[in-house]
Amino acid sequence: MERVFNFAPGPSALPEEVLKKAQEELLCYGDTGMSVMEMSHRSADFAEILDQAKADLKELMEIPDNYDILFLQGGASTQFSMIPLNLMVHNHKADYIKTGNWAKKAYEQAVKVGDAKVIASSEDKTYSYIPDYDISMLRPDADYLHICVNNTIYGTRFAPDRLPETPDNIPLIGDMSSNILSEPYDVSKFGMIYAGAQKNMGPAGVTVVIIRHDLVGQADPSIPTMLDYKTHVDKDSCFNTPPCFAIYMCGLVYKWLKEKGGVAAMAELNKAKASKLYDFLDNSALFKPTVLNPIDRSLMNVPFVTGDKDLDAKFVKESKEAGLVNLKGHRTVGGMRASIYNAMTMDGVDALIDFMKKFETENK
Amino acid sequence: MERVFNFAPGPSALPEEVLKKAQEELLCYGDTGMSVMEMSHRSADFAEILDQAKADLKELMEIPDNYDILFLQGGASTQFSMIPLNLMVHNHKADYIKTGNWAKKAYEQAVKVGDAKVIASSEDKTYSYIPDYDISMLRPDADYLHICVNNTIYGTRFAPDRLPETPDNIPLIGDMSSNILSEPYDVSKFGMIYAGAQKNMGPAGVTVVIIRHDLVGQADPSIPTMLDYKTHVDKDSCFNTPPCFAIYMCGLVYKWLKEKGGVAAMAELNKAKASKLYDFLDNSALFKPTVLNPIDRSLMNVPFVTGDKDLDAKFVKESKEAGLVNLKGHRTVGGMRASIYNAMTMDGVDALIDFMKKFETENK
Repeated sequence: MERVFNFAPGPSALPEEVLKKAQEELLCYGDTGMSVMEMSHRSADFAEILDQAKADLKELMEIPDNYDILFLQGGASTQFSMIPLNLMVHNHKADYIKTGNWAKKAYEQAVKVGDAKVIASSEDKTYSYIPDYDISMLRPDADYLHICVNNTIYGTRFAPDRLPETPDNIPLIGDMSSNILSEPYDVSKFGMIYAGAQKNMGPAGVTVVIIRHDLVGQADPSIPTMLDYKTHVDKDSCFNTPPCFAIYMCGLVYKWLKEKGGVAAMAELNKAKASKLYDFLDNSALFKPTVLNPIDRSLMNVPFVTGDKDLDAKFVKESKEAGLVNLKGHRTVGGMRASIYNAMTMDGVDALIDFMKKFETENK
Repeated sequence: MERVFNFAPGPSALPEEVLKKAQEELLCYGDTGMSVMEMSHRSADFAEILDQAKADLKELMEIPDNYDILFLQGGASTQFSMIPLNLMVHNHKADYIKTGNWAKKAYEQAVKVGDAKVIASSEDKTYSYIPDYDISMLRPDADYLHICVNNTIYGTRFAPDRLPETPDNIPLIGDMSSNILSEPYDVSKFGMIYAGAQKNMGPAGVTVVIIRHDLVGQADPSIPTMLDYKTHVDKDSCFNTPPCFAIYMCGLVYKWLKEKGGVAAMAELNKAKASKLYDFLDNSALFKPTVLNPIDRSLMNVPFVTGDKDLDAKFVKESKEAGLVNLKGHRTVGGMRASIYNAMTMDGVDALIDFMKKFETENK
């Protein structure tokens, strides 16, 4: 069986080189005589894997020294609770910008903890744009401002130069699950960044948290120990057994990214891939992008529709037969979505556009 | 590099056949054209992997129909909090038997939630035995009784015929992280069983929870959504992205166990492996087992000492050079520990005993 072009929103395609390396080492990592899956998380060999992954991520994202890097379990969904439990601790208030399902889910967990408020939303138009924001909308006594930086389902993003400004005492918290490492973001603009690995970093089962050190250690001791960032910072992600193999896979992806020239080089490629696809969609007689304002558009997730549900279904079916899989859009948007993460090659995007052209001709 | 005999307490050895199968399928699972790591958790292919893993585990453990089977993240350490948050909800009381570090850690999280009480302990003798228990020790209004069925660090276990009896209204909750699937336990004697996969089931990063259905849905809605069992039961472990690859690996281990004759056949082999090792230790002039009462002894973790720290260190060093790795004991017990989970072959145990004999002769 040949490998397909996989446009899944997450879990999603991994670089073939990375999978081949993991395959090669699966029964025996280096001179250890065992698989990474069989390695004690307290062993020197695993410590090296973890340290290298952290160092490479730090280098790739230019993470300042006053940030801790954690590899946790439970997905972004667990972060939705950990964030308010750890950070909504001064005035018990936090502000949220609602740009999609995940932003909404994050807000809903914060409501359980304290006075969470949606200060801007794009729900009125199925989250197809990034809402206007200025600093006056923020409550001055909010403990933080939370955003979802890239909205996987709806295909919008806060571009690196359009991040909401906050005063120094109100940290910006960003869910970057679906666009971490896709283009350079200034980490120092955030109090915390988090990302489930399964879109742009590795397999499902590990979540990266990058948190400014002064924000750690504020949680009430009554919360579950596993939900306190301090627990994991103090033990360098090894308070309990971490998801070792998933961390190893992320480490291989980081090495691959460095070989490819790092985040800046990846951003160039991602912009070229996205531009080509959006250009085609903007000029197509059949397909329409659902995000109209170019400055709101995600580089990673590109939703589009024909306007005809039956034709959409036909497209999804026939594209799959052509080896272009997982193009079905989310039910709240309908139509199609091409997720073109770092691991999606230009060849994959070209194959998609070629197929769309053919489909357009056949279905005029 | 040859594969070593890996006696690590967890993460620990996996069956070589399982690793080879995973290696073979790593770039392309079946006719999907992608790795399991790249598969959408909403896809039919992954649903089949999940369903089959559940069905095989149900068959292997003879899990009754009124139990839900979950694959969660966060390790047993997260269960330590989920258990009281979900189950200490009627009288806000729960009883714990303290047989080791992990039992103690479970208890400490319950103290955060309500009135948790240690009703029996073996702490006085470094947890080297299973303390006496009778039903009169249990508080009649306890919401549950928690035990750690096998104590990885100390090498003791509650044997299948020595589980604490509880009245019908007080469910027994068992941490079986280090002995699940090692010998038959009657699941119907438990309200809930849980186990981190990384000792006897698969790689780190997934925790199996087997919970009687009537115990689900009792948690206060104010707890984090991710910590409510109902969240995961309602969505069949797919409320958020589950650790797909770790689940797939567990599934391969379940298939392997079925091919080997299931849990009963594995128990025979485990008893033969453990007997051989304990017999040697009981008759050795140099090595002593730390658990003296045979009925308290774990089949999975066998701690032993020489009584001389320098000699212990020499043994750990030389055994490693001989390809017998991770034999160092936990710092609270000292000496050595051989973890001989399902994936450890009789050849591995024989090699260990041969090495011990040689070491004994050389160090008289």
